[in-house]
Amino acid sequence: MLEMRSICWRILCNRSFSSSVTPNCFPLVSLDRPHDIWHPPPTPHYNTHKKTVEIDGKSIANDIKATLATEVNHMKNSIKKAPGLGVILVGERKDSRSFVRIKKKACEEVGITSVVVNLPENCTETEVLDAVSALNNQESVHGILVQLPLPCHLSEQKIINAVNVEKDVDGFHPVNVGNLAMTGREPLFIPCASRGCIELLHRYGVEIIGRKAVVIGRSNITGLPTSLLLQRHHATVSVVHKFTKNPEEITREADILVSDVGVPNLVRGHWLKPGVVVIDMGSTLDSKGSHVTGDVCYEEAIVKASLLTPVPGGVGPVTISMLLCNTVEAAKRSYQWTENS
Amino acid sequence: MLEMRSICWRILCNRSFSSSVTPNCFPLVSLDRPHDIWHPPPTPHYNTHKKTVEIDGKSIANDIKATLATEVNHMKNSIKKAPGLGVILVGERKDSRSFVRIKKKACEEVGITSVVVNLPENCTETEVLDAVSALNNQESVHGILVQLPLPCHLSEQKIINAVNVEKDVDGFHPVNVGNLAMTGREPLFIPCASRGCIELLHRYGVEIIGRKAVVIGRSNITGLPTSLLLQRHHATVSVVHKFTKNPEEITREADILVSDVGVPNLVRGHWLKPGVVVIDMGSTLDSKGSHVTGDVCYEEAIVKASLLTPVPGGVGPVTISMLLCNTVEAAKRSYQWTENS
Repeated sequence: MLEMRSICWRILCNRSFSSSVTPNCFPLVSLDRPHDIWHPPPTPHYNTHKKTVEIDGKSIANDIKATLATEVNHMKNSIKKAPGLGVILVGERKDSRSFVRIKKKACEEVGITSVVVNLPENCTETEVLDAVSALNNQESVHGILVQLPLPCHLSEQKIINAVNVEKDVDGFHPVNVGNLAMTGREPLFIPCASRGCIELLHRYGVEIIGRKAVVIGRSNITGLPTSLLLQRHHATVSVVHKFTKNPEEITREADILVSDVGVPNLVRGHWLKPGVVVIDMGSTLDSKGSHVTGDVCYEEAIVKASLLTPVPGGVGPVTISMLLCNTVEAAKRSYQWTENS
Repeated sequence: MLEMRSICWRILCNRSFSSSVTPNCFPLVSLDRPHDIWHPPPTPHYNTHKKTVEIDGKSIANDIKATLATEVNHMKNSIKKAPGLGVILVGERKDSRSFVRIKKKACEEVGITSVVVNLPENCTETEVLDAVSALNNQESVHGILVQLPLPCHLSEQKIINAVNVEKDVDGFHPVNVGNLAMTGREPLFIPCASRGCIELLHRYGVEIIGRKAVVIGRSNITGLPTSLLLQRHHATVSVVHKFTKNPEEITREADILVSDVGVPNLVRGHWLKPGVVVIDMGSTLDSKGSHVTGDVCYEEAIVKASLLTPVPGGVGPVTISMLLCNTVEAAKRSYQWTENS
């Protein structure tokens, strides 16, 4: 409790910072020794320390995109090259098409060139592998993303393994996951939602080292890499899943709680310790496809947490901006270009 | 507590099993759906349920080696081929030379051919990489092991990454670690100590699914893969490390406690819940090099735990036998040979 108060205190202290501080994408390359906590600039939602602070994912995402746009512009002026993202989209799933549209638009906003390869629902595995191979060989494509889920007749494992590990901007290749898990190793890419989660914590001055973090869910895409990443940042991590008995007993101990299971309002008020930082990565569309709900019961969490991500507008926008970061970093590595070169 | 009693009960029930049951190396290939708990045969240490049961690692290791020896013999008779292990040993470290000797002897016991490549302490990285490459290309070598630690001037990461993933019997290659971490993926090899830990739990009828498991330490060699493997077996896993505040509060919640930090007697009696299953993977040599001590204070644990591994004689011998299992499995995959073929 005292520790949580200290987090809130840090956040409140940051109100006195100059508003001219420009937030940058927090560097995540050298993970074994986390950098000093990044101090966020003052924003309107720090007005009162008695209420839960709602994390403003949209504004952070816009901030990151603005920084990336400047960087991409410098790259274009300097070496006449732009970062490129290749997306493979199989089938006609509405949600997948919508996600790809959002990613494409975000690329345009920062000056990343994007190519979408559309394949029909009934395409063969060989056709998808050929598309991956073509993007692997295309010099102007620095990041490759296979929009998941794939139709059942295709092996997700085989297709993701075929992506060149140096272009794996989703960070799902086993080499990147293995290097994320191991101490002293550096993955080339960190999965976007997990990287976004840490980015939010850093931006809001949340200390991770030594804190108890509980991750609900262990999906390859989000839960697993987030637990590995929190551990790299020296949190004491517990992972809760469908076989966990009395999960609320474990979550009530958490200083930082991350949920990613896609069960609307699973996490109730009595699952939370007062002052906890809650990162809600769940998002479930209602049957009409018009409304998204998170894993955390917002009304109950808003009176208990010190910091809370809303759904939508929390982790989602930052996840997209992390994809852009990964793509720009891939291009920089490919051209051995830095801002100062 | 009730759950722990149920574990003890299971163990005691197994006393009535026929002594003709031959223990086999527990299959660990399909990890996403753990097999039904393997029921161990009666052994003398089940005599009383009021005392802690000391896990007899030596006897389990002998059991596994006997099974492997039969299998290797069948392979030789059937295809005139033997499994082969290649070991790279750099420098003159006494402990490393001793470990390599033990492994070589264990290979001989089951009929595995072993080759040790000795390189001087001051050899270059290129020389080690060349040795790895030669073993990668040698058809009669199915498993490669680089004895760790390496001298400081050599990059452990570069050298381990150079081992053919299909011969990585130590399971330290990032592809194998990534596939161990991810749901739905199958690593070709599981690190030997971690596989040994699960083997011991299975052999003693300890249910893992849904249990709270706490792993102290997160080394790439043992702590990390053991936490990943326990999670694959659906335990609710927490990882405790040097930045954890009040670790004893977390360990006291554990149904299964694994320690691998190399700090003698770190885990005291008040760190343990009555009835806990304790797997002590730590082993520290005293200054004279004659006596090994575990991480767990044996005298205090023996009156609290339901099951406890001694040091020495617990995890150590089973770890060696798991290396033999990995090597035999590598050879079987290489020759596409099975016991029934």
